[in-house]
Amino acid sequence: MNAEILNIGTELLLGYTIDINSAYLSQKLSTIGIDVFYRITVGDNKKRILAALEIARSRADIIITNGGLGPTVDDITLDVISKFTSKKLIFNKDIVENIEHHFKNRNIVMPECNRRQAYIPEGALIIKNSVGTAPGIILKNNNVILIALPGPPSEMRPMVDNFVIPYLKKEFGLNTIIKSKTIKIVGLPESKVNEKVKDVLKRKPPTTVGIYAHPYQIDLRITTKAQTEQNADKNIKKIERILKSRLKGYIFGYDNETLEEVVGKLLLKNKKTISIAESCTGGLLSNRITDISGSSQYFKLGAVVYSNESKIRDLGVSKEILWKYGAVSKETARALAENIRIKGKTDIGLGITGIAGPTGATKTKSVGLVYIGLSTPRKTVCKKYNFIGDRLTIKLKSTDAALEMVRRLLTKS
Amino acid sequence: MNAEILNIGTELLLGYTIDINSAYLSQKLSTIGIDVFYRITVGDNKKRILAALEIARSRADIIITNGGLGPTVDDITLDVISKFTSKKLIFNKDIVENIEHHFKNRNIVMPECNRRQAYIPEGALIIKNSVGTAPGIILKNNNVILIALPGPPSEMRPMVDNFVIPYLKKEFGLNTIIKSKTIKIVGLPESKVNEKVKDVLKRKPPTTVGIYAHPYQIDLRITTKAQTEQNADKNIKKIERILKSRLKGYIFGYDNETLEEVVGKLLLKNKKTISIAESCTGGLLSNRITDISGSSQYFKLGAVVYSNESKIRDLGVSKEILWKYGAVSKETARALAENIRIKGKTDIGLGITGIAGPTGATKTKSVGLVYIGLSTPRKTVCKKYNFIGDRLTIKLKSTDAALEMVRRLLTKS
Repeated sequence: MNAEILNIGTELLLGYTIDINSAYLSQKLSTIGIDVFYRITVGDNKKRILAALEIARSRADIIITNGGLGPTVDDITLDVISKFTSKKLIFNKDIVENIEHHFKNRNIVMPECNRRQAYIPEGALIIKNSVGTAPGIILKNNNVILIALPGPPSEMRPMVDNFVIPYLKKEFGLNTIIKSKTIKIVGLPESKVNEKVKDVLKRKPPTTVGIYAHPYQIDLRITTKAQTEQNADKNIKKIERILKSRLKGYIFGYDNETLEEVVGKLLLKNKKTISIAESCTGGLLSNRITDISGSSQYFKLGAVVYSNESKIRDLGVSKEILWKYGAVSKETARALAENIRIKGKTDIGLGITGIAGPTGATKTKSVGLVYIGLSTPRKTVCKKYNFIGDRLTIKLKSTDAALEMVRRLLTKS
Repeated sequence: MNAEILNIGTELLLGYTIDINSAYLSQKLSTIGIDVFYRITVGDNKKRILAALEIARSRADIIITNGGLGPTVDDITLDVISKFTSKKLIFNKDIVENIEHHFKNRNIVMPECNRRQAYIPEGALIIKNSVGTAPGIILKNNNVILIALPGPPSEMRPMVDNFVIPYLKKEFGLNTIIKSKTIKIVGLPESKVNEKVKDVLKRKPPTTVGIYAHPYQIDLRITTKAQTEQNADKNIKKIERILKSRLKGYIFGYDNETLEEVVGKLLLKNKKTISIAESCTGGLLSNRITDISGSSQYFKLGAVVYSNESKIRDLGVSKEILWKYGAVSKETARALAENIRIKGKTDIGLGITGIAGPTGATKTKSVGLVYIGLSTPRKTVCKKYNFIGDRLTIKLKSTDAALEMVRRLLTKS
């Protein structure tokens, strides 16, 4: 069983929009044993979309198009599918009601052009869009299953999870199982992780391991193929045990877990609350923590003290510290951590100060120098980092390092 | 003249690596008038790479492969090209010396496997790699020009700039210029923008306009083809004037400018400073503003007041307001904006409160309800929004709307 992905959109073809949907689709399809051999990207051009569909039909069982379902004249995916399958576009009242409802919720009258989205190829199954206006479709035609999905990831993803995958599983009676588990590592550079697991990375199928590096995190992905869920789990468990023994203490989570999510769970579990004072990270850490639903239970106060004045006035950092050691110093980080903890009346306080660059370096302090203070009623500690990268990378690495300090504190206790 | 891009690599096909090279290539090719109609991504599989090359030959003048030139057994691009063109791979002494030199510079003896990279199809032009080990090649064969480039962007880019583009320009005697300009819009939904410029979107070459929607921003991209730089500029100017007259007041910037960058420049120009109190956006707005280098000149204080307690204690929102109107209310947003402005001693204060979801909705207040207060010494205003989307989308839209309020304030004055 194999699927071909057809991305439709001039903005994708020219690279103005980066394609993140294909990765999501490929990974979801692989969990039910459907391979993707080709991914094609074409612009909003009828002739070329049609040509790509013709080629895809000759080599794939399933064709999944992505994009071109919007209300504008550029959006021609369904027109082309109609031509490709010789199925007329038929007006669907339910869809237009759904779209009208969508606009009504926002107190807007549906623009006339959105009616276009209610014309669906005859005989197609309709996939409801719970987020936006464009419905998806599934259409069986000449031994190929055509699936058309909208481009915005937030609209496409629930359709894949709730409709497309269950449909394909049932349709093809799929029971080869491909399973993956990602082990997420923080606090060790890629070269060190590589050294520790070099032999495991060379393993051959059915169970293989890949290494994927992010700015301050490393993923190890175990993938296995089996006939039953149990056998797949057994294969993964075996490798996981080896990796765990080699990387003890550096594994913070699994699969799609984020560091902020893991730290959030630890705070909840330990009934601890946290406040954060940020200088060089400018709110990124508070933002990451509040990306997690329910974070209001443990996150109480964030302060972005970007100027010396506000460090003094709003967080009580003493003028002496700033004068003697500077804003980027161990002493300032400690004061920020301690004072925000007291001010926020929380169990933990974090203070981050550093030079995110590209400007701001001095003779003795270079871009990437970051101090992170961590304060509890028992004690306040501080770590010094020298990060490499551009402004946004240094902000990101700093917040990862800060979260990792909290994680270590809470897993020790 | 048209080129087809063939990305080679299982990690790309499965989406573990995000493809950024295609965008770079497409944009560089477009500047000399070469179109890209198809972009294909295949895994490290001989049969399928070959099949993709065959199809590409039937419709493109130039085929550019990317990836698969490394030293490992997975890297089979040149093997396949050799088969595809019936040109033998021939050992090239200069290349191996270049690779040895590369390793010597790092005090490493060249691993044996790197010798593979010195086998080049007979008759190919060699593109030196100044950064890594894999050379690129250009090979004319049966009316098609085959170009093979290495996958790492840092190796591929200088090859494109210094070798591929000059080569193609000379080869095809190209003097057509393609130029683009993006007009960035905020504060109008896609359907409204579409209605206003429907006729312009239907324009035919040489000057066309495309519409690209983001969660709370719309891009209109003008693209033109001309024989001279001056004519290209003239074509763009003409359409730009039309779009400007239709979208007056909603255009915030051009090309790669971000809203936070534009607002930053306006604050600097108007010598205004800003402080921000965030509830539902959790620090995202402060983070976006501080993504801009030099933001410390205008951004003074950020507060993330996630709990009612800290809204009262740290920002002086009265208990009465919270009790009578709730934390998500016009009154709270106004108080946040006003109080952070006074606390931060800045010219402008922003206060954001809302329900980012997925939980937190009440009978009268649904997920996506957001109030944004904007305070100056002269007056404090508040706007109400009903955003649709998941938690992160609502956070993003809220910050876009807040930045837009500041932009409007500063462009009026």
